Amino acid sequence: MNTFGHIFRVSLSGESHGKAIGVTIDGCPPGIPVQPDDFLPDLSRRRSGKKGTTPRREEDLPDILSGIYNGHTTGSPITIISFNKDVDSGSYQQFASVPRPGHADFTSRIKYSGFADPRGGGHFSGRITWGLVVAGVIAKKILKDSKVIATLIEAGGSKDIERAVEEAMNAGDSIGGLIECRVENPPAGLGEPFFYSAESAISQILFSIPAVKGVEFGAGFKAASMKGSEHNDPFTDSTGKTLTNNAGGINGGITNGNEILLRVAVKPTSSIGKEQKTFNFSAGKMTTLKVEGRHDACIALRVPVIVEAAVAVALADLLLLDRGIFSRKD
Amino acid sequence: MNTFGHIFRVSLSGESHGKAIGVTIDGCPPGIPVQPDDFLPDLSRRRSGKKGTTPRREEDLPDILSGIYNGHTTGSPITIISFNKDVDSGSYQQFASVPRPGHADFTSRIKYSGFADPRGGGHFSGRITWGLVVAGVIAKKILKDSKVIATLIEAGGSKDIERAVEEAMNAGDSIGGLIECRVENPPAGLGEPFFYSAESAISQILFSIPAVKGVEFGAGFKAASMKGSEHNDPFTDSTGKTLTNNAGGINGGITNGNEILLRVAVKPTSSIGKEQKTFNFSAGKMTTLKVEGRHDACIALRVPVIVEAAVAVALADLLLLDRGIFSRKD
Amino acid sequence: MNTFGHIFRVSLSGESHGKAIGVTIDGCPPGIPVQPDDFLPDLSRRRSGKKGTTPRREEDLPDILSGIYNGHTTGSPITIISFNKDVDSGSYQQFASVPRPGHADFTSRIKYSGFADPRGGGHFSGRITWGLVVAGVIAKKILKDSKVIATLIEAGGSKDIERAVEEAMNAGDSIGGLIECRVENPPAGLGEPFFYSAESAISQILFSIPAVKGVEFGAGFKAASMKGSEHNDPFTDSTGKTLTNNAGGINGGITNGNEILLRVAVKPTSSIGKEQKTFNFSAGKMTTLKVEGRHDACIALRVPVIVEAAVAVALADLLLLDRGIFSRKD
Amino acid sequence: MNTFGHIFRVSLSGESHGKAIGVTIDGCPPGIPVQPDDFLPDLSRRRSGKKGTTPRREEDLPDILSGIYNGHTTGSPITIISFNKDVDSGSYQQFASVPRPGHADFTSRIKYSGFADPRGGGHFSGRITWGLVVAGVIAKKILKDSKVIATLIEAGGSKDIERAVEEAMNAGDSIGGLIECRVENPPAGLGEPFFYSAESAISQILFSIPAVKGVEFGAGFKAASMKGSEHNDPFTDSTGKTLTNNAGGINGGITNGNEILLRVAVKPTSSIGKEQKTFNFSAGKMTTLKVEGRHDACIALRVPVIVEAAVAVALADLLLLDRGIFSRKD
Repeated sequence: MNTFGHIFRVSLSGESHGKAIGVTIDGCPPGIPVQPDDFLPDLSRRRSGKKGTTPRREEDLPDILSGIYNGHTTGSPITIISFNKDVDSGSYQQFASVPRPGHADFTSRIKYSGFADPRGGGHFSGRITWGLVVAGVIAKKILKDSKVIATLIEAGGSKDIERAVEEAMNAGDSIGGLIECRVENPPAGLGEPFFYSAESAISQILFSIPAVKGVEFGAGFKAASMKGSEHNDPFTDSTGKTLTNNAGGINGGITNGNEILLRVAVKPTSSIGKEQKTFNFSAGKMTTLKVEGRHDACIALRVPVIVEAAVAVALADLLLLDRGIFSRKD
Repeated sequence: MNTFGHIFRVSLSGESHGKAIGVTIDGCPPGIPVQPDDFLPDLSRRRSGKKGTTPRREEDLPDILSGIYNGHTTGSPITIISFNKDVDSGSYQQFASVPRPGHADFTSRIKYSGFADPRGGGHFSGRITWGLVVAGVIAKKILKDSKVIATLIEAGGSKDIERAVEEAMNAGDSIGGLIECRVENPPAGLGEPFFYSAESAISQILFSIPAVKGVEFGAGFKAASMKGSEHNDPFTDSTGKTLTNNAGGINGGITNGNEILLRVAVKPTSSIGKEQKTFNFSAGKMTTLKVEGRHDACIALRVPVIVEAAVAVALADLLLLDRGIFSRKD
Repeated sequence: MNTFGHIFRVSLSGESHGKAIGVTIDGCPPGIPVQPDDFLPDLSRRRSGKKGTTPRREEDLPDILSGIYNGHTTGSPITIISFNKDVDSGSYQQFASVPRPGHADFTSRIKYSGFADPRGGGHFSGRITWGLVVAGVIAKKILKDSKVIATLIEAGGSKDIERAVEEAMNAGDSIGGLIECRVENPPAGLGEPFFYSAESAISQILFSIPAVKGVEFGAGFKAASMKGSEHNDPFTDSTGKTLTNNAGGINGGITNGNEILLRVAVKPTSSIGKEQKTFNFSAGKMTTLKVEGRHDACIALRVPVIVEAAVAVALADLLLLDRGIFSRKD
Repeated sequence: MNTFGHIFRVSLSGESHGKAIGVTIDGCPPGIPVQPDDFLPDLSRRRSGKKGTTPRREEDLPDILSGIYNGHTTGSPITIISFNKDVDSGSYQQFASVPRPGHADFTSRIKYSGFADPRGGGHFSGRITWGLVVAGVIAKKILKDSKVIATLIEAGGSKDIERAVEEAMNAGDSIGGLIECRVENPPAGLGEPFFYSAESAISQILFSIPAVKGVEFGAGFKAASMKGSEHNDPFTDSTGKTLTNNAGGINGGITNGNEILLRVAVKPTSSIGKEQKTFNFSAGKMTTLKVEGRHDACIALRVPVIVEAAVAVALADLLLLDRGIFSRKD
């Protein structure tokens, strides 16, 4: 079920240390101008290299195999891949018997009966989100004047993010982070009532980003302790503009044209340099584990552009779906 | 897109004050014992009548039209409906020009160009979740020994829920609530890596419940301020049991066999007796609105059984999907 | 998988002798004018009563439960049912041990492990196509100026259909038939290249009509023995009009705006009054069987309106899908 | 909508003269042994080179990017591509204004507003079926002891196929063909009643193969002129074996365990050396066209292995779907 969307359909494939990772986008309208360079800014935001991110270097350049011709989408499926080059798989063999806490080592082994590619986390690696960022670049073009902007607003509970990351690195530890995403000037009317509401679609895709453990819209969890008289957003003009935005721009699962506002909780990177307890499945007893290798002290640093991509893909699909259903109305 | 699921597929239909509401379940295995009375306990938990819930009374009895024969599911689509009887639509006409803050009055009008049934919130009414609860009863049977239990743990920010509700009622106001859901003894190995991870599937269906504005798993939003050394759950035995459960029973999007733990934020009921400001779209100016009629002071009181149903439906679909993919492995 | 379509989604449910049969249509645009009487002409064409069709009488009146309000579709799911009234289930018990040749008695028993409702063929009855005809009425409205017309052009190999039917009845036998369907003035550009080409979508839904065993487009099977110079349809003007129509109005899986032309082979009714050999699964030996009860001597007499409905539903979905994908192009 | 299947999901991408063509298979069970060489026999059957097929030579070697590790499927998406090497796009520019009769030149231009890649037929080229053959190789492994065998039984109406092809080549013309496909020892119980019956699923995928214009099961179109007493297949033993096989191994849309039997009509190649009339859209008047370049005189020669792949993919999906639904029955 590696596909998201009903019209603008995005599928991801690849393993962290396999031959290549990739994305296929089906149902993209023809005629959207796309140049290879268009992908670079977002891919560079996603890539490692900043303080607190893994020293692994991938050029990550997109190789467009199909669906784009003469600088425009053609309407047929777009497949874009990136060959994996900087691969160091040596250190991953041990995790079959000593699964790393917090990782998919254990669950992927039981789910796939030992056949999953364990190298670098295989298909469960954050590296697979490369294709989501690629799809996000095209989705943002479909959204035209709507602007999707995600920012890391807290790391390890602190707003001084740089310092929090440095402390975690020094301690051989990792920290989580809180990301806020705003969609300025969103189309109104997006979202289908049950099971594919704007919140359903957006949360479905956000929770497929590794390390995401919470999603909230508008006032979110704070709404649970609010009164209706506080939470209700009064309309103030005939375009549906509201005085407050506790609903995060969504009423009844449908966008109301106000800014879409959501927050995403990212857990701390599971791989840490610090010694941890865990179970040795071969030996049948508890053991200690220190995860060597290249890791992000704060994976949340790289997640904002992925959140943007996810939100853009969900909105692009909702938009095309809404316009499709409505096309024969008049 | 009023269908959830890939194998165990649930579709809802109906409007609050229409002729009937209903649910169709496609892809349900044959041979599951089902009696009409099996639906009553959960439907009665969902029904109004408690203090703080609307005085509207519906018998809500399920009318099984197809898919169940001789006390067992047949394998063909199950359709179950309930005729609406206690309908009072008089007070809803005004909301076309004066949309209620927090409701779908405005968004459904722009989305459906004025053709949506406005009576009682139409298809956006919480009443439509009746069918989800019906589907949940069957999903719980598919999950067999796994037990899904949701509880309201806070209302209006207080753990003294009864008192909080009473205060809201006295003030003509409403309050939100926080629901915790645990799945005891869940199957391990459920969840597909991208776009249909356990968290993706569960959040997609939870966010289609009206009034839900936040979903988190395990430590959830707290994880954003935790360290890896705190958040990682050490394995303690060969079944994958973990010492802590900050992951909420899900690693890499796949259930690890530990209790699934999640929380859901429910916003306060939008309809309140208190006077509110909003915009009069006919008059083109701000106005005040007092929503008369029958409402819940704390809709969250009725949501736990709906959360249970949603989680059970998502897990049943993930289970059948997992077993389907795996069936030819050996 | 009892749903057809990607945007205009049609689901059927019910059993022949169950409480009710029904259809749910999801993704229907709002604002389409629909009155209960609109369904009657097509339902009456489908109903039995003509010479050569079963004497079973069902009023078959549609009971609109949701999705239509004030004489228009609302945009939310449309559920329409019909209660079964004239039910005589006495004669069906025997077919568990002596399955009728040509029927689903045997296959449904092994597929559903004996839990399928056997009465009247259960969910495998032609009666379930009632809901497809209902959906077809709405689909035809979406197609606006395109006209879908299906006709029985041969029965039992003869063009004198009335006589062929009478001979079959007198012999206690049944006959098959050939149906031709034309879509006048179809939209051009419908069909997605792989897996949901115009031919793929139309054949998928046609082959779900019980008794259909062959589908061909344009010259169809004759094309297998033609030359390219004969089969190619020369374009004759700037609208894409072609001189001949061997392609049946579809090139590369996409409608070219010329008349869509297809033929459907309907097998003879499996239930016949004549004595047949078959296997008695209880006794473990061959036996003879004479199927009593109410049957159609030529089920193909009732199929044209179902073919029309199927083709209309497929085209409506392709149309909304096409317009959805294209909506953001300009 | 470039994806086929509900569990075993196959997506095709690529253009004839683009950078690469490819296939992604999602939902494949883990642990299926796959070596790169396993693909060669079927790919070689599909490849050109025989008399009557285009002289274009592609190595067509499969490049496995993901989903296969240590000689087994991993359970994550399998992506396999092939770079296009022997590309000669010179002669395709003219078809924008003078669309070739029988081709998708006209329909793809109107559908995609001129943005489709026209070179070599772009995404509408038979070349895209390469990925389907690749998927078929894996699907056949899932079907285990079931054997799918397709054969060209007639070309241009003649059983002396070699001679018919030679005559067509000499005349600068092309011919169609008739393909028969048998599935020996198929699983019983496959097929979902409405909309995804065995016939629906198989025909949907078969009609996405370019040039297929007709599909029939068992007696097929002949059934339209048969009597019930002739067409009904009497059961002869407790395994459901039947005396005749007019049903083609499918009753009520569900496989009955007898050989699955179907026939596919393939139209003659649209590109012919002979001069044809058609319309010049730039000049606004009729013109003549002679299609130079590399073509198959009888494309049907290459189609049997594609039919096998299509049928195998459909059956694999039906099998996994059936087993998934049934997994919790006992």
